[in-house]
Amino acid sequence: MSLSNRKVAKTVQCTLLVKTARRTQLVDITREVARAVGESGVQDGLCHLFVPHTTAGLTINEGDDPAVALDIETTLDRLAPREAGYRHAEGNADAHVKSTLVGVSQTVGIEGGRLQLGRWQAIFLCEFDGPRQREVRLRIVPDPPT
Amino acid sequence: MSLSNRKVAKTVQCTLLVKTARRTQLVDITREVARAVGESGVQDGLCHLFVPHTTAGLTINEGDDPAVALDIETTLDRLAPREAGYRHAEGNADAHVKSTLVGVSQTVGIEGGRLQLGRWQAIFLCEFDGPRQREVRLRIVPDPPT
Amino acid sequence: MSLSNRKVAKTVQCTLLVKTARRTQLVDITREVARAVGESGVQDGLCHLFVPHTTAGLTINEGDDPAVALDIETTLDRLAPREAGYRHAEGNADAHVKSTLVGVSQTVGIEGGRLQLGRWQAIFLCEFDGPRQREVRLRIVPDPPT
Repeated sequence: MSLSNRKVAKTVQCTLLVKTARRTQLVDITREVARAVGESGVQDGLCHLFVPHTTAGLTINEGDDPAVALDIETTLDRLAPREAGYRHAEGNADAHVKSTLVGVSQTVGIEGGRLQLGRWQAIFLCEFDGPRQREVRLRIVPDPPT
Repeated sequence: MSLSNRKVAKTVQCTLLVKTARRTQLVDITREVARAVGESGVQDGLCHLFVPHTTAGLTINEGDDPAVALDIETTLDRLAPREAGYRHAEGNADAHVKSTLVGVSQTVGIEGGRLQLGRWQAIFLCEFDGPRQREVRLRIVPDPPT
Repeated sequence: MSLSNRKVAKTVQCTLLVKTARRTQLVDITREVARAVGESGVQDGLCHLFVPHTTAGLTINEGDDPAVALDIETTLDRLAPREAGYRHAEGNADAHVKSTLVGVSQTVGIEGGRLQLGRWQAIFLCEFDGPRQREVRLRIVPDPPT
């Protein structure tokens, strides 16, 4: 290996903007994340995703049958109903609770420039207090050089 | 320090195969993960674990008393019952919901070649639609060189 | 750039000690985490947070109105009540369940030496079996050099 041929990838960060249409809604963002990973030039490493919001989240689940996302939305609405005697006065306490149950970040491996998702897995932005425009921050980190 | 003595670890990835025996079951995989970390040669860094499945998950909880895992299984079955008017027609919508509640990845520190778990912590593959054979993908990333 | 001017950050780990006052309590630790990141010298990278406990967790949610944390506490207590026929005999099975629902780790980006939290986000240690003294382990990892 000659040094001049060695390509050293660097960490890339970028932000995806996602428009949501309903109050509680899982939006499949896999294609956008995969594109960002492809454009980053990172061949092997990790992709860290983060939503800087307190009434949204990120999950990885089945993207093939849209009914799965609907069932997740419905169940979360049942576990944290919109009205349940909450103290937070803005009318979206349930959305904050759902954000904590689902979580605001995900980390996915990258091999050969591709996200290492399972066959049925898709990445979803989880909107819990929409409709809004949301941000998903990506940090695409190559494996350390040896 | 002479350069020739310097050992630079590289990122190691591997896959564990886990057979599950029940529909909802937490399987302790701590020993297998610790062995992979030990064999990786990584002294200090992070171990990222990921299940490429949509009806399984990963959690870290008490491994000493097996009743804790049973209580987690029972509570998740109560929060997302097998039948609840789901739209997904494959009869495992509850398993997808549980996967989102628990999450599909974990990240654990490595110091001196050892997983930095707390005294009572164990790593569990969470089966929600078993019995099956499942994969757990590990990415063992050394701290960047300085 | 001369080599002598090049500052290469290294991975820093440290442990925060957090005293909790109630059985179920979200404690805002954002200031302590931000201070540790600032002192680490890491300009760009990721901060990994981990609680080595099985009856505690970590979440990121709104820190401005304390009522949000209370609503999260109350909802988790409703989803996993203290008494629910659990098998674990120590009387804190609900706390173990809550730990799995919330999770024991978080990962947050660092840019320009600062935690990249959203405007309303705060980092909370989640106590589920207090009062106790808890540990939060930080691993502050700079982006790999290029």
